[in-house]
Amino acid sequence: MRVDVLTLFPEMFEGVFGSSILGKARDKGIVSLETVNFRDYANNKHNTVDDTPYGGGGGMVLKPEPIFAAVEDVSARANGERAAEGREPAKPRVILMCPQGEKFTQAKAKELSGEEHLIFICGHYEGYDERIRQYLVTDELSVGDYVLTGGELPAMVVIDAVVRLLPGVLGNELSAVTDSFSDGLLEYPHYTRPPEFREWKVPDVLLSGHHAEIGKWRRQQSLVRTLERRPDLLETAELTAKEREWLEREKARGGLPAPDSE
Amino acid sequence: MRVDVLTLFPEMFEGVFGSSILGKARDKGIVSLETVNFRDYANNKHNTVDDTPYGGGGGMVLKPEPIFAAVEDVSARANGERAAEGREPAKPRVILMCPQGEKFTQAKAKELSGEEHLIFICGHYEGYDERIRQYLVTDELSVGDYVLTGGELPAMVVIDAVVRLLPGVLGNELSAVTDSFSDGLLEYPHYTRPPEFREWKVPDVLLSGHHAEIGKWRRQQSLVRTLERRPDLLETAELTAKEREWLEREKARGGLPAPDSE
Repeated sequence: MRVDVLTLFPEMFEGVFGSSILGKARDKGIVSLETVNFRDYANNKHNTVDDTPYGGGGGMVLKPEPIFAAVEDVSARANGERAAEGREPAKPRVILMCPQGEKFTQAKAKELSGEEHLIFICGHYEGYDERIRQYLVTDELSVGDYVLTGGELPAMVVIDAVVRLLPGVLGNELSAVTDSFSDGLLEYPHYTRPPEFREWKVPDVLLSGHHAEIGKWRRQQSLVRTLERRPDLLETAELTAKEREWLEREKARGGLPAPDSE
Repeated sequence: MRVDVLTLFPEMFEGVFGSSILGKARDKGIVSLETVNFRDYANNKHNTVDDTPYGGGGGMVLKPEPIFAAVEDVSARANGERAAEGREPAKPRVILMCPQGEKFTQAKAKELSGEEHLIFICGHYEGYDERIRQYLVTDELSVGDYVLTGGELPAMVVIDAVVRLLPGVLGNELSAVTDSFSDGLLEYPHYTRPPEFREWKVPDVLLSGHHAEIGKWRRQQSLVRTLERRPDLLETAELTAKEREWLEREKARGGLPAPDSE
């Protein structure tokens, strides 16, 4: 996969693209991660990439020309490299990070992980000229309902979620842990050494060696935690008939067992 | 405000803490942003911070001792500095970034912006020993329903959302733009020069100079865009009686006007 990020703050990406899973994926050649300063595509002598809005009002608006030029140049270069390898040209997904966008989800991460080329456009306090949205962008994404200074951090979030799904990026030992959402419930509590830290002990059942009991306790803890924190997930989780009954009883009681009650 | 981030990947934060709004807030002395590698607090000769889970299963679990020691050391140092300035000790908010956490929202950003000291704990593929959650952490936060490699990017997102709300961080010209959510609707489309880019023109009304017409068009565009993309926001948005009527008509029609229809 090829990922290009258009930003006025390429230095923000250095530490993130070089570390951890993203850095390893890049070192293994599974993904290329590049930043493009779209100021380099400003078609005027002052290198201006924004201007005041038509119709008045505060703030600045990113001009269409530098963004179109940067996206088109990056696409052409990618397709030039593909042609040199004897491959067909590909159409990139052009992703605008903005609060008005579609909510980013794990399903969207999975969808994007099947693409060959992603281009991210990150604005920074400015608005975007509407023609960028209408005629250049294929996806507008938002990572959540909070106000951030720019699209850079949201782009990093999306890139991390997507790249870790690419084949060969995660080792097996990691994917085992991170697939914890796979049964649709929140994770059960984890404990490791020491068995007693200050006055707080690891639950006896985990030290018992009885695998069936441990499995039962963990499932119960997952259910209780999900009911307490994210009851919406229970609507679609895979539950046994007995678990559904328990759930109905708990809802009817209007209360919850203490998290460490058996 | 003082912000300390406990992480095994401090290098991920360098570019982000040094740039843009966060860098400026730090330069102005409004916030201190520090990373703490909690491996420095490992109490064993191999500098181990994680271990296998009690009860079996894949993955590793972050041990309680290094995290407790790092949080307590950072708190003690902060209070030492406060004492030297003749101020009362403060209790930090200790924030764990994890998928099971409370959904981070703008309201939470506002709440946290009133604190004096935030400590973030960022795990990285590992689970957390439950005693960290139960006896050390004050808040568990999630930035969205997607799986990321670690808590580092989510912590950056929360820090950006919080720090930009601190007095003196944003100039007036910026806050004007970024308060676009304040009426509870999505933003109207923005346009800037050139008036014609390729064959795509700026809507006539924005070039008309009629401020009342421009205001009307923008409001209408905001309403249409919000109805198309985020109808949930209309439930709580401040609408006039006439706008409510329009909304009911549109919902009854089951369709929407084209975004550029007047």
